[in-house]
Amino acid sequence: MDIVGERINGMFKDIREAIITGNPDAVRQWAIRQTRMGAAFLDISVGAGAENPYEAMAFLITEAQSVVDTPLCLDSTDYDLIEYGLKLCKAPAMINSCHADRHKIERVFPMAVEYGARVIGLAMSEESGIPKTADIRAALAMELVAAADEYGLPMERLYIDPLILPVNVAQDHFIEALETLRQVKFMSDPAPRTICGLSNVSQRCQNRKLINRTAITLLMGAGLDSAIADAADIELLDTIAAARVLLNREIYCDSYAELYKSAKHAVKE
Amino acid sequence: MDIVGERINGMFKDIREAIITGNPDAVRQWAIRQTRMGAAFLDISVGAGAENPYEAMAFLITEAQSVVDTPLCLDSTDYDLIEYGLKLCKAPAMINSCHADRHKIERVFPMAVEYGARVIGLAMSEESGIPKTADIRAALAMELVAAADEYGLPMERLYIDPLILPVNVAQDHFIEALETLRQVKFMSDPAPRTICGLSNVSQRCQNRKLINRTAITLLMGAGLDSAIADAADIELLDTIAAARVLLNREIYCDSYAELYKSAKHAVKE
Repeated sequence: MDIVGERINGMFKDIREAIITGNPDAVRQWAIRQTRMGAAFLDISVGAGAENPYEAMAFLITEAQSVVDTPLCLDSTDYDLIEYGLKLCKAPAMINSCHADRHKIERVFPMAVEYGARVIGLAMSEESGIPKTADIRAALAMELVAAADEYGLPMERLYIDPLILPVNVAQDHFIEALETLRQVKFMSDPAPRTICGLSNVSQRCQNRKLINRTAITLLMGAGLDSAIADAADIELLDTIAAARVLLNREIYCDSYAELYKSAKHAVKE
Repeated sequence: MDIVGERINGMFKDIREAIITGNPDAVRQWAIRQTRMGAAFLDISVGAGAENPYEAMAFLITEAQSVVDTPLCLDSTDYDLIEYGLKLCKAPAMINSCHADRHKIERVFPMAVEYGARVIGLAMSEESGIPKTADIRAALAMELVAAADEYGLPMERLYIDPLILPVNVAQDHFIEALETLRQVKFMSDPAPRTICGLSNVSQRCQNRKLINRTAITLLMGAGLDSAIADAADIELLDTIAAARVLLNREIYCDSYAELYKSAKHAVKE
């Protein structure tokens, strides 16, 4: 269960200010902190309001890579910006994300193959929006699976996102996301990996962390392999560690919870 | 998601001492406390070492019923003792439990129908022990489902237990229990209810409560309706409340966690 640390994102105030002022402290601190907590990737997003997104993307990538070896996950709807970022990444990165529309697949999949990158494929198209049912989401996921075969992207580099909406406004969507995961894992062999943007489930809810860690447990039970999430939420990490043991993906030992919270990539001292 | 409060059990020291001394305080206190935390039933077990189990059973039932209206769950392998207890119960009780062996079914199911009781049916037989695979557990569960039809026990009064073992010594069993739940819910219509003895999963493990609440979330995702558990574990109850909202079994409101922890039966003041 890989965590993509969500924190280096221009929608957070400290990162937005770092981009504006050019002071790299917040970026470096979050890169180190998330890596120490065991993040497998670090999400990198310049946010919506960056004046010069290319300059901001280069700044965030360079500063993160100056302090950790953790691979990056480039988060943008602008594929030229993502390609610009991929050239700067020292380790093979993740592309966040690609809809199941043909013109997006044609832009993203060849680029992923060229740079050895992973792709987050959304179980939705621009045309359909977010489908209400799992069946339609799974069908769109299968178009991304077929595209991986077509373009020669190894299946373990495709991460299907079943789409998570806030439970307080779209409560009936979560069980559809669970069913989408089950279907995606059932319908292809080898199956693609799976991922979701976890924190979205609890937007504007009471007890956000409680909802986040309960949601990830249910998602893991349905076939979730990884999540873009708060890599510094200790109780979330403890819950994932326990779920890994219960789902027989990790052998039980008394230090199971500590082991999961240990760094998986190097921090440069 | 109904909790059967596990605490009035002679294996706990305070209840064992209450049985020996005849001082009812611990029994009454646990009956009140578990009821206030929202327990749907109270498990009643005299434990293994009671000198006079019939006297002890009558004592526990009478004392619990003196302070709360909560229905009881009579827990014993001695069916004559259970029948003796059923005669003392003011509200229809639950029988804990019946193996999927013919001679046990013949003793328990007619008694359940006579007293309007519910039955916990174990997905194992004395002959087979605890089956390793979900397929065999589900097949044994289906024998209990057929027996309910045969004896006229309404399906909503049969609770199938997929069997939970400690994860540190029988780690590969938990995923079989999850699969058993899925199969039991899929294979019959109407489906029986489901239940498990939750605390067993974390026996002698580190961070027991973490494992318990992560386990119940995974079990709920696979179809668990109820659990014999620690009704005073606030974090467990919070987790169940969040899972109910995520699984769309309860409408989200900001007080979802408080609502679940409120009493479902009357405490006599």
